[in-house]
Amino acid sequence: MRLQDIVRGLEEGNRRALARAITYVENDYPEGKEIMKRVFKKTGNAHVVGITGFPGVGKSTTVSKLVQKFREKGRKVGVVAVDPGSPFTGGALLGDRLRMEGLDVSKNLWLDPGVFFRSMSSRGRAGGLAAKTGDVIRLLDAFGFDVILVETVGAGQSEVDIVEVADTSIVVMMPEMGDDIQINKAGILEIGDIYVVNKADLGGAEKTVKWLKSMIMMDQEAVEILSKTSHADEYAVESGEIFERMKRSSDWTPPIITTVADRGEGIDELVDAIEKHFNHLKSSGKLKERRVRRISREVFSIITEEIRNILINEKGGSFREVVEMVVNNEIDPHTAAERMIRDLRTNT
Amino acid sequence: MRLQDIVRGLEEGNRRALARAITYVENDYPEGKEIMKRVFKKTGNAHVVGITGFPGVGKSTTVSKLVQKFREKGRKVGVVAVDPGSPFTGGALLGDRLRMEGLDVSKNLWLDPGVFFRSMSSRGRAGGLAAKTGDVIRLLDAFGFDVILVETVGAGQSEVDIVEVADTSIVVMMPEMGDDIQINKAGILEIGDIYVVNKADLGGAEKTVKWLKSMIMMDQEAVEILSKTSHADEYAVESGEIFERMKRSSDWTPPIITTVADRGEGIDELVDAIEKHFNHLKSSGKLKERRVRRISREVFSIITEEIRNILINEKGGSFREVVEMVVNNEIDPHTAAERMIRDLRTNT
Repeated sequence: MRLQDIVRGLEEGNRRALARAITYVENDYPEGKEIMKRVFKKTGNAHVVGITGFPGVGKSTTVSKLVQKFREKGRKVGVVAVDPGSPFTGGALLGDRLRMEGLDVSKNLWLDPGVFFRSMSSRGRAGGLAAKTGDVIRLLDAFGFDVILVETVGAGQSEVDIVEVADTSIVVMMPEMGDDIQINKAGILEIGDIYVVNKADLGGAEKTVKWLKSMIMMDQEAVEILSKTSHADEYAVESGEIFERMKRSSDWTPPIITTVADRGEGIDELVDAIEKHFNHLKSSGKLKERRVRRISREVFSIITEEIRNILINEKGGSFREVVEMVVNNEIDPHTAAERMIRDLRTNT
Repeated sequence: MRLQDIVRGLEEGNRRALARAITYVENDYPEGKEIMKRVFKKTGNAHVVGITGFPGVGKSTTVSKLVQKFREKGRKVGVVAVDPGSPFTGGALLGDRLRMEGLDVSKNLWLDPGVFFRSMSSRGRAGGLAAKTGDVIRLLDAFGFDVILVETVGAGQSEVDIVEVADTSIVVMMPEMGDDIQINKAGILEIGDIYVVNKADLGGAEKTVKWLKSMIMMDQEAVEILSKTSHADEYAVESGEIFERMKRSSDWTPPIITTVADRGEGIDELVDAIEKHFNHLKSSGKLKERRVRRISREVFSIITEEIRNILINEKGGSFREVVEMVVNNEIDPHTAAERMIRDLRTNT
């Protein structure tokens, strides 16, 4: 498929063209960049919804039910599953398979032209989740999907990184997960615009809801107190987007929805909350704010990638030279970096 | 404390000077860079050992026992615990407290001048684990610690990132953790130079050892096959250090040590394996190879940080301008990045 065929294919709603475009973007082919440049003007309309949470809480089932519900409402839905899987023992391929089995309950979704599913591996990508996922989301956006669900698979940093790409972040938990220090430490409690306590039929859901409520309240208070102190800037720099997200508390109290996703219970409420949050973002001007920050980070991460390419290709010789000097204890890494930046900026 | 007092303090073995130097480095004070430049020539002697694994497998206890054993052998030991904790609900401070309780069995270690403990938060740091941890490790190295144990606390990407800073990576597991897809997905199976099956008294340890052995063998085979194909380069780029580490298989088969850390069982064997691996790295020339790669990444991450500073401060106006153009759909992020790089390189 030639580049212009792909771009035309995207305009005509050809799913094969979309799949091919994503592959180009994912693999950093020059065609990928060119496609992004050409489709860019059509982006910015979709609502990007991130879904995160520890393994086993039922994220995939929740996503699958959300897809169904949004389809019933006539929305076109794209799903991106970000899998930090290993390049050898699994990765995107295995993710795809697992996911399809997980979505078994709604196999017909795979035949629905209003639904598109893609899994991506974030592992080993410089710049992490944001760098590639941003472009993939934008392709789905340009293709005309109204809602783009971005699910992180597995545990870890990627759960926190989801705030980097989503307009609305949903944190999925299950009963009896409260009071656990590991949850605090994962940092996922601060990023939710909406919280879901799934598997509510297991019992203990009320306790978890209560605990979540108190955590959210504590966060709100902490942010309010901090915002008034001289430490606010320091924290903002340290925690970046997280702090910005927490500041939303003053005019958006994250709702806590209890669900039994595999029976479809609570999904209507969740869809309502998602739509309410999007409206809140739009009417309060926060949508633009979030997107400005997101695009700043994205442009910065593309710049970083490009600088890496310049250092490897164009400046490879002098880069290897300064590294060798550091290894031989002749200069320190900071001096080495300073020399390279001087070289980059004066000798083009 | 003035800069020269800190540098002299470091030379004289003053622990307060060390603590202060670490704080400067962690908080990105200009003094931190200056200290690093001055102490750099004294680095490169310590053996950096990374310890990683899921929460609850007994990493802290293992670390505490390793410290004791290395002390018995007359080695000075520095410990860095990297905690991806939240800036609000915990972070390094909470980590410290927990850790001290975890190390309760060996409280006397805290009074031993041959031991130094420091916990760091990796959260929100641009460049992740490698950027700051590299400098902190280097400070401990310059201070004269023979062995530096770097422990990751909590789950996630930081476990994989530990290969970025360690000469020797230890992956700690516990029985009945085998066969679990989550473990595969976390990618920690590929990074171990040494595997530990702790809590072996729980039963089921043999099964886990057997499973680990087969995984390691599969990895070796996969790497050998891949290395001979045209895909090798592709995988190497994708997975970076992981692939380099896996290639070690051909001349280092990772031993699997069963331990009951809280009773001190298996710790002698673990210390032997750690020392054997260091000797292997030195005699095979792999130590230098690993350090060249590590320093390349480190210099690159300092360059990235500096570019970020230049974009925020010196070029803030034009950066905001191109971001605004992207938000308004006038240009795409790649074009924006290209413009900024041109600006960086021609208009100094």
